[in-house]
Amino acid sequence: MENSIFDGIFETVREKLPLVHCITNYVTVNDCANMLLACGGSPIMADDSLEVEEVTSLCKALVINIGTLNARTVESMIKAGKKANALGHPVIFDPVGIGASQFRRETAFKLMEAIQFTVIRGNISEIKTIYKGTGMTQGVDACEADEVTESNLEETINFARSLSQQTGAIIAITGAIDLVVNEKEAYAIKNGHALMAKVTGTGCMLTSVIGGFVAACPEQALKAVVAAISAMGLCGELAYEKMLAQGSGTGSYKVYLIDYMSQMNTKLFREGQKIEIK
Amino acid sequence: MENSIFDGIFETVREKLPLVHCITNYVTVNDCANMLLACGGSPIMADDSLEVEEVTSLCKALVINIGTLNARTVESMIKAGKKANALGHPVIFDPVGIGASQFRRETAFKLMEAIQFTVIRGNISEIKTIYKGTGMTQGVDACEADEVTESNLEETINFARSLSQQTGAIIAITGAIDLVVNEKEAYAIKNGHALMAKVTGTGCMLTSVIGGFVAACPEQALKAVVAAISAMGLCGELAYEKMLAQGSGTGSYKVYLIDYMSQMNTKLFREGQKIEIK
Amino acid sequence: MENSIFDGIFETVREKLPLVHCITNYVTVNDCANMLLACGGSPIMADDSLEVEEVTSLCKALVINIGTLNARTVESMIKAGKKANALGHPVIFDPVGIGASQFRRETAFKLMEAIQFTVIRGNISEIKTIYKGTGMTQGVDACEADEVTESNLEETINFARSLSQQTGAIIAITGAIDLVVNEKEAYAIKNGHALMAKVTGTGCMLTSVIGGFVAACPEQALKAVVAAISAMGLCGELAYEKMLAQGSGTGSYKVYLIDYMSQMNTKLFREGQKIEIK
Repeated sequence: MENSIFDGIFETVREKLPLVHCITNYVTVNDCANMLLACGGSPIMADDSLEVEEVTSLCKALVINIGTLNARTVESMIKAGKKANALGHPVIFDPVGIGASQFRRETAFKLMEAIQFTVIRGNISEIKTIYKGTGMTQGVDACEADEVTESNLEETINFARSLSQQTGAIIAITGAIDLVVNEKEAYAIKNGHALMAKVTGTGCMLTSVIGGFVAACPEQALKAVVAAISAMGLCGELAYEKMLAQGSGTGSYKVYLIDYMSQMNTKLFREGQKIEIK
Repeated sequence: MENSIFDGIFETVREKLPLVHCITNYVTVNDCANMLLACGGSPIMADDSLEVEEVTSLCKALVINIGTLNARTVESMIKAGKKANALGHPVIFDPVGIGASQFRRETAFKLMEAIQFTVIRGNISEIKTIYKGTGMTQGVDACEADEVTESNLEETINFARSLSQQTGAIIAITGAIDLVVNEKEAYAIKNGHALMAKVTGTGCMLTSVIGGFVAACPEQALKAVVAAISAMGLCGELAYEKMLAQGSGTGSYKVYLIDYMSQMNTKLFREGQKIEIK
Repeated sequence: MENSIFDGIFETVREKLPLVHCITNYVTVNDCANMLLACGGSPIMADDSLEVEEVTSLCKALVINIGTLNARTVESMIKAGKKANALGHPVIFDPVGIGASQFRRETAFKLMEAIQFTVIRGNISEIKTIYKGTGMTQGVDACEADEVTESNLEETINFARSLSQQTGAIIAITGAIDLVVNEKEAYAIKNGHALMAKVTGTGCMLTSVIGGFVAACPEQALKAVVAAISAMGLCGELAYEKMLAQGSGTGSYKVYLIDYMSQMNTKLFREGQKIEIK
């Protein structure tokens, strides 16, 4: 495939330094902020209903992540989301662990009713749960039974397309094979490394990076999502190689992930991306 | 002593990948999650009373840590703890900084009344406060006056045993010398390094690891606790050596702690454990 | 200038190991705790109104940071601040992102009315907002239009002095050039590196370190603030050199910042400080 469609996107993000409002969980929030800074964005975390509308107005995109949900922040998510919609800002949704409780499912459906999302990103089990209200769950990880493979790829693209039609959002399903699908186009991305699952919040970090990329390139949202996912996966691969070379472990692996994102550029990306148009 | 009783425990945790529900503080939560992943467990953090019972039902163990307590989460701790008890899941308690306020003491006693804990882990000052309602405190650290030494070891084991009889929980007291005591058995562990106190949350991380180990080996809970504590201390020693070799500092030291936990296995453990039956 | 006025301050902090109560945001709280430990302090984070007065009574200083404000913690900040004032403890204020919302501005003014602050530290846009209620904002970062340069240095010192007279607090403005000003004295500090802005919370971490330094040397608060800021900036410079030498990125850069703070001493400081009396 033509690499050139993604040329310059990394430089654009760094140049624009887009402010991204994140309402996210307290487990991975620091890594989300640092990963967003590393890719060229600028994070602001604010979750009180007294200020979320103003804060979101200062920004170029909003990221909503339900990783550690509570009643207080659900209201803030809805207020911020409506404001971002009114301003035409991209809104990215990460339904972390949606299968883990009725509260998460109800909240996710309430958010999807109140807010027009630009992108919904989750693992396959989370996205299935959003689609059917079913989908398996193993806490915050995807279930093996749900896994995206070469053999169910077409079927998964069809289901994602149908969810995209239903929601109007770009659907991003991440796992061993990542898929990014809207009503007309579909991309498969084969970057990434299994060790990323041994660091908490690599999915949350990716969603923040997607926020930064889509904020910087709102008119090319689909490609921005593809570039963000491929870049994050590539960081996962490079970090793995470095971990092996250094004989270190998963603590260092997280540090390397951020290191490589801070070094990402068109050249590195061209050499490493594994993006396929489907 | 026979190393063989701990043989294979690290591999068992990695193989079972037990989901552990943590209701914990927002200061060290990310490191707790990453340390739990590093030892082979799988963390899920959820603290809203609307979902804690469901989340705990998905898991194999529950960890309760009162490091940054607030009224909202106390109710969640009690609901989750009762549910875990009803399901027969191990419940681990970390009474962080219990001496620092009346609110923490009252909450700890309320939790101990409502929930049957499997393991209670704290520094000596925290455990004394639980026992007598007294015990000194220096914020979240143990007081020197309380310190466990060779000369008060037997006395401390007796007091821990008495607390174990009273609570039905395994009592784990960590410090320069760690003790793990139930009604019949007692272990002293001499792994660890003083520098661990210069990283926030090494105690919290250890409690999470204990959650993972006991979740994987519930029928051998005492040994699982001993193995977790010894392994964490060993990581502290190895990380110190690496810090000296690299000329780095306490930022790197935290990263190395997680690195070594992610590399821990029976062979490394056999060579490094300093466990004594008392 | 005479280095000797700062001689021994690092050793004093490490010797006294002052407990510092931090009511801070959940984004950078872990790094604040670790940076405070690295410089020789001892952190305790507690934000529930049921315990903040007791916790602050155990400590030697209080740090209040409004990075992720909510209604629950505002009340705690006021209670803790009043208690710290009553006990004569230094209270440090970090008005993070005060320009980002009416809620933050109102809270900051409410806090300044209720509490006598010893030190107020922010970027130039934050400090201007406190002074005039205006000041630009770009989320949590300073606006370029506000930047302190050689050409507006005197004007900025005058404005900071006026704010110091009005509030009774030492005013610390950090950026490319840092200023520390009270009613009579003024220091400019030229340590630091632009890359520090690519790690979330370097400002918050610095405020925590200031808490530790002022707690250890309350009778020399102005110099303690100057030393803390210069030391943090010096860590930023050393960390940058190491990052270049290692070919790493901003993930490692954060780790190195903490590493160098944990190694900071009079000798290193003498060689690297760029402090000017104004």
